[in-house]
Amino acid sequence: MSRTARILAAVRESAPLVHCLTATVSMELVADLLLAAGARPTMTWTEREAPATTGLADALLVNLGTLSEEGRAGMLATLPVAVERGLPWVLDPAAIGPAPSRVALARELLTLRPDVVRCNASELLVLTGDGTGGRGADATQAPEQALAAAARLTREHGCVVAVSGPVDHLTDGERVVRLANGTPMLSRVTGTGCALGALTAACCAADLALGARRGPGWALEAAVAATSWLALAGERAERRSRGPGSFRAALLDEVFGLDEPALAGERRSEKRCVDDAPGAHGVAGGQEW
Amino acid sequence: MSRTARILAAVRESAPLVHCLTATVSMELVADLLLAAGARPTMTWTEREAPATTGLADALLVNLGTLSEEGRAGMLATLPVAVERGLPWVLDPAAIGPAPSRVALARELLTLRPDVVRCNASELLVLTGDGTGGRGADATQAPEQALAAAARLTREHGCVVAVSGPVDHLTDGERVVRLANGTPMLSRVTGTGCALGALTAACCAADLALGARRGPGWALEAAVAATSWLALAGERAERRSRGPGSFRAALLDEVFGLDEPALAGERRSEKRCVDDAPGAHGVAGGQEW
Amino acid sequence: MSRTARILAAVRESAPLVHCLTATVSMELVADLLLAAGARPTMTWTEREAPATTGLADALLVNLGTLSEEGRAGMLATLPVAVERGLPWVLDPAAIGPAPSRVALARELLTLRPDVVRCNASELLVLTGDGTGGRGADATQAPEQALAAAARLTREHGCVVAVSGPVDHLTDGERVVRLANGTPMLSRVTGTGCALGALTAACCAADLALGARRGPGWALEAAVAATSWLALAGERAERRSRGPGSFRAALLDEVFGLDEPALAGERRSEKRCVDDAPGAHGVAGGQEW
Repeated sequence: MSRTARILAAVRESAPLVHCLTATVSMELVADLLLAAGARPTMTWTEREAPATTGLADALLVNLGTLSEEGRAGMLATLPVAVERGLPWVLDPAAIGPAPSRVALARELLTLRPDVVRCNASELLVLTGDGTGGRGADATQAPEQALAAAARLTREHGCVVAVSGPVDHLTDGERVVRLANGTPMLSRVTGTGCALGALTAACCAADLALGARRGPGWALEAAVAATSWLALAGERAERRSRGPGSFRAALLDEVFGLDEPALAGERRSEKRCVDDAPGAHGVAGGQEW
Repeated sequence: MSRTARILAAVRESAPLVHCLTATVSMELVADLLLAAGARPTMTWTEREAPATTGLADALLVNLGTLSEEGRAGMLATLPVAVERGLPWVLDPAAIGPAPSRVALARELLTLRPDVVRCNASELLVLTGDGTGGRGADATQAPEQALAAAARLTREHGCVVAVSGPVDHLTDGERVVRLANGTPMLSRVTGTGCALGALTAACCAADLALGARRGPGWALEAAVAATSWLALAGERAERRSRGPGSFRAALLDEVFGLDEPALAGERRSEKRCVDDAPGAHGVAGGQEW
Repeated sequence: MSRTARILAAVRESAPLVHCLTATVSMELVADLLLAAGARPTMTWTEREAPATTGLADALLVNLGTLSEEGRAGMLATLPVAVERGLPWVLDPAAIGPAPSRVALARELLTLRPDVVRCNASELLVLTGDGTGGRGADATQAPEQALAAAARLTREHGCVVAVSGPVDHLTDGERVVRLANGTPMLSRVTGTGCALGALTAACCAADLALGARRGPGWALEAAVAATSWLALAGERAERRSRGPGSFRAALLDEVFGLDEPALAGERRSEKRCVDDAPGAHGVAGGQEW
């Protein structure tokens, strides 16, 4: 069984509790996707409640989408508690760019060393000071254009960087994993990126339950598992839907039902070292993950 | 026609307006479930607006999930107005436990005498000081373990207590109703418990429209009606869905469509007195409700 | 090809970015409907972030539903920026009536000259001082009863008024368009009115991209396009759904898929001058739009 398949099974078995400080617009999808995957959400965000609530959690998601003032204060109060407890956590700098205050907050949170930064290429380039942002929640750059920035971020902060796009790119600074699954329909439903951040946090918790040891770049397998899970479910959902409404329901069904044979047979991934020429050490199939 | 069937019909006919001070994460499902049932929602929560808006309402839901600071202030300003107007109201102490401030708020609201407290067993045991809480929104105890606490709460506050679980238990302190319908899939969709609280408030308003007289424990029939409605709709929805995404849509369809023959034929319930040995006065079927 | 069909095509081609300051309860549906239509949403509302974020937008929606304090402050800070930039914008005075502060805010925003006011008849009559409001988000008057108020509003503020109801009425003060499409099922899903406001904003942006010139009443065609789009999608969705849950998913699918032949063949509309006797200059079919 692949590493990804073991992580999926561990999410379903251990039902990690993921505390989500996340965008209001997609809060329901984030919670529902965690539930479909077998994890459990808590979603409270205030300074008054979130630090105490995170004390029960197995992982934390911090997503900057539709950021309220209460949510901002809650993040700044909760993250130090989570870090002190050693919780794995995922930073999603959603839609950073136009509002300078959000860019500054994302960079401040980065110093608290997230295990994974999940974003699109335009968001990443804002974070590293190499761009001004995309168009709302949409990237105007491809992951390939952000790989150098991703590598720099991983080295400076010890995090994994997972860049979503037509081909997802994930890196720990030494290895780059390219995943060619997914469907454009995922960008026709609000919050699928936010939900992927939450699923990544759940997979981090599950991988720790399987015995993974934390250290720089340790979360690459968890991030690959989450990204593969959502992308493959998306492909299957698209085949049985007629548009974005039925697709959204089918996506949750497929996340719920995705099994090991589907993962093994349908994943289109490639792993190589950061400095390799493209394709030089490409590995077909995803069995090794 | 059973009492439950009459209450359902009255919800559809009178379309009670239910003002919901409720969790952000499940606000949409709460509103959509009320609409599917034939009731109408209003959802505004601020101190500036909620007290005036509740002036139009036929019933009130107060749910403590994902509690914002504005929402907290709005509850404290709105409830006295609702109580003064004699509105029936339901308290849902969602996910109390980890945050001490939420526990304190729930206990403070309890003194305003809700007609129904709807919760799971772990939440109930926190409310009565007999436990420390569940796991996020999930119970770690069964309703059976919380029956003594429920009976105490009903006697002290005159409320009905509706405890959700694999077998739902509802009590007015003298009678206990056990409902064995439902499906685990209901816990794979965020907010189904919140939505049940809102539906309970709608059924309270409808029962008053049918001529029910308020007094200690008066709302037991309304709470049984709401719980049966959602549980039976859940069973039917599960039979025609492939996972939690299609289940959520089907649940709303089945709440919309559930009819009197389904209620009469599919309900598995039992009523007995609090002090009876289990099963001693058990009543098969649900026709009498 | 009709004007409406050209506007739909332009939404899909230009993917206008619509900044939505909108009700929390329906934020997800608003975003998902824009995505289904081919537009893109941004949803952030705070004074700290919204004025900067609106700088990228092609149109703005301001909806007063479930109005938070942060949202209120954000509207007052953002609208002057949007107006200064010349963004087309839509005002949706959702559920005004019971809370005097919301009525006052709606009237204040009106002075910033929205291109379209989208509402139901009861909301319109509150806005113009001719009524006290509906029942929650529901109208208790028909659009026909509010036509004189609508005409007055258009003359005073230069806006188009789009009044939703069993037969939608839209007017620029000189022409009145009556649209007899739609289904009562649209009022069984929370937020479909909010989503129509957002779609109207998207259609305004698209019509400008097609070369429309702004001036008093210029947005009538855009408002007719959005209203027709949603109403026809609703009719088609109802034919393939079993209740409000499956209807909501199907609605998004049909907004995504609605094509020019459907628009041309299924629209039931009539246009006449404001002072005409009903039906005097009625035009069957909607080809001219």
